[in-house]
Amino acid sequence: PIDADRLWDSLAEMAKIGATAKGGSCRLALSDEDKAGRDLFVSWCEAAGCTVTVDRIGNIFARRRGRDDSLAPVVMGSHLDTQPTGGRFDGVFGVLAALEVVRSLNDRGVETLHPVEVAVWTNEEGSRFSPPMMGSGVVTGIFTLEEILDKVAQDGARLGDELVRTGYAGEASVDHPMHAYLEAHIEQGPVLEVEGKEIGVVTGAQGQRWYEVTVTGVEAHAGPTPMRLRRDALVAASAMVQAVQRVGLETAGDPCATVGILDVHPHSRNVIPGRVFFTVDLRHPNADTLADMDRRFRAAVAEIAEQQGVSAEIADFWHFPPTPFAEPLVDRVREAASGFGFSHRDIVSGAGHDAVYVAGKVPTAMIFIPCEDGISHNEVENISPADGARGAAVLFETLVATAGR
Amino acid sequence: PIDADRLWDSLAEMAKIGATAKGGSCRLALSDEDKAGRDLFVSWCEAAGCTVTVDRIGNIFARRRGRDDSLAPVVMGSHLDTQPTGGRFDGVFGVLAALEVVRSLNDRGVETLHPVEVAVWTNEEGSRFSPPMMGSGVVTGIFTLEEILDKVAQDGARLGDELVRTGYAGEASVDHPMHAYLEAHIEQGPVLEVEGKEIGVVTGAQGQRWYEVTVTGVEAHAGPTPMRLRRDALVAASAMVQAVQRVGLETAGDPCATVGILDVHPHSRNVIPGRVFFTVDLRHPNADTLADMDRRFRAAVAEIAEQQGVSAEIADFWHFPPTPFAEPLVDRVREAASGFGFSHRDIVSGAGHDAVYVAGKVPTAMIFIPCEDGISHNEVENISPADGARGAAVLFETLVATAGR
Ligand SMILES: NC(=O)NCCC(=O)O
Ligand SMILES: NC(=O)NCCC(=O)O
Repeated sequence: PIDADRLWDSLAEMAKIGATAKGGSCRLALSDEDKAGRDLFVSWCEAAGCTVTVDRIGNIFARRRGRDDSLAPVVMGSHLDTQPTGGRFDGVFGVLAALEVVRSLNDRGVETLHPVEVAVWTNEEGSRFSPPMMGSGVVTGIFTLEEILDKVAQDGARLGDELVRTGYAGEASVDHPMHAYLEAHIEQGPVLEVEGKEIGVVTGAQGQRWYEVTVTGVEAHAGPTPMRLRRDALVAASAMVQAVQRVGLETAGDPCATVGILDVHPHSRNVIPGRVFFTVDLRHPNADTLADMDRRFRAAVAEIAEQQGVSAEIADFWHFPPTPFAEPLVDRVREAASGFGFSHRDIVSGAGHDAVYVAGKVPTAMIFIPCEDGISHNEVENISPADGARGAAVLFETLVATAGR
Repeated sequence: PIDADRLWDSLAEMAKIGATAKGGSCRLALSDEDKAGRDLFVSWCEAAGCTVTVDRIGNIFARRRGRDDSLAPVVMGSHLDTQPTGGRFDGVFGVLAALEVVRSLNDRGVETLHPVEVAVWTNEEGSRFSPPMMGSGVVTGIFTLEEILDKVAQDGARLGDELVRTGYAGEASVDHPMHAYLEAHIEQGPVLEVEGKEIGVVTGAQGQRWYEVTVTGVEAHAGPTPMRLRRDALVAASAMVQAVQRVGLETAGDPCATVGILDVHPHSRNVIPGRVFFTVDLRHPNADTLADMDRRFRAAVAEIAEQQGVSAEIADFWHFPPTPFAEPLVDRVREAASGFGFSHRDIVSGAGHDAVYVAGKVPTAMIFIPCEDGISHNEVENISPADGARGAAVLFETLVATAGR
């Protein structure tokens, strides 16, 4: 029910904005490139006859009228911002598949009972500004608007100021009505590809706990300071990185444990590091197991700090519990996949998505498509046009079933 | 034979330039603060009747005439640049103790046979621009002038341009004649303090080998990427940091092994690091043992890379062999300390100093004084005024004995 070539062309067109050397995309949230991507999206939606509104946290909603336009809209969407060395499909696929559904509804002259909207959520990645999923988090009351507007990026920019600068400090209330929410996304992992499945029916998302750890030792000269007298913050922190890895390797189920950022102070070749800052990201589909990972991580950090004669502070940075999606809507995704004869399997999302926050407010489901070698958050991230078309087709069917005729 | 209060006041005055929050100094090589420190030094030397010349790498030589001014000068000196969070004495003490010797020669109307000079060497620390000891390295032919002028700082500045900008791109040849070289310095380690010695008679410096290591894994999403499929560059690099520490701990004698810089790419909380860069600094007084440390370090890096499925490249960055100082001059330092009745011991320098390069060209010796808790390369670095005065007195005696009457 969709135009596979048009979808593919739009993906290619969007990928030109912030294109990176190795074929990926860099459109950090509310950067010049993110603004250019948003502007292109808005122009496409207006060309498709949609009414575009922007809310106070910069979320964009492109609306196609419903037969009863007073009903709450069925919203499809995802994000256009990327990681620093991100791919061309993470987020973008969900947004442009949703736009393709709207274009296709137009082509076929299909009227839906509920209005239909395509949403672009602000700063899903959580890379330039952290934590992730800010736009959807404000709309669902996880974060207050004020705290998010005041977030400061690694580069020193304030989020509220960047919204104004890029022209996306909208007027609409963040209390956005929704009847249901659907998000198509690349899997970002290897499961569908390895098992040869065309569609992932996402039953929910695993829980996440993010931390910031600061290790403080004693700066000293790398030459005349005897090994046994050192209190080297990096020696301690690197043992903690190993411990985080062990927490991941030694947990049953599908655990994740990652240190993505590690900064050394004072950052000089011949100075024993006096302070190290690093981030930790723990994930598990089971809440009890995640709590156990949390305990083991904290114990390991405390033990290493003690051994190495340094101090270590752990700050909770962000977390959400394992989040199930709405069963009737998940069933509808499964039926749509089966209806097309696509091979599929149920899957738990390893990543957080805007859908996770929205699921706390309205019935929500997600559709996964495979990505090459399971690689994401990487410039070489890739999908096949056929996989993209299948995902958009399942989104079309689920949308129409949910929005009604 | 010196004015202890005047020396202490000059140290305090210099410490006001680039003063840091915790009582240290930040005068990174050829920064605005380094320029201000140099300007102050030059004004003091001119007030003391010296003729100041600057060579093409920015080394400053302040000359006091000798009875036979055609003879090569006896040079005393050290450096005024500091680490990012450096102390008030590392380098500065050696420069201002030398200036105090000149001031004291003036006060007493002492004529020396050889001319006497106070040298400030450019970029000893090797922090903003690396490697260390650049000014003395160019004068002694270790580096070519051209390669050093082209060095680029972490902040993107070119050394040659910073010399021009700060007004220290001098005209004098870098082939500077010297009869002998004497450098007073804080120990930067705990040995003298622990043993209650007032003076360290430095017999030479331990050898150093510096490296740069780049670990390359595969960037991927921190959520949906299973632990067993990861090729995490930071997990590998942190095991390598542990291995460097073990090389230090498991070597006999007085080994040092330090990772001072470690940078993670792409530096995002939810991306498995695809690349890590880190520096390694290995030191030992014995050349064979240092070569053995080198072998064990390389083997450990290769083994960990293999285990973790990542690649690791080791680049040699900088090195010098264990360097003995000139025995007759070292004896003169020992005699001067004994003559004053100062407690003393022979000691090998754990740090590199400009004296190490100069020792390859002319007879060289160093005088160490204790520093509080053995701490250096730290804002809290400290000495007692009495220890400073003792070091300057030994420098005075050794200088007069070497320059002749
Ligand atoms: N899809 C995605 O990358 N979301 C960001 C939050 C996360 O790391 O799970
Ligand atoms: N004294 C000093 O800090 N020199 C720099 C070279 C080294 O790290 O040994």
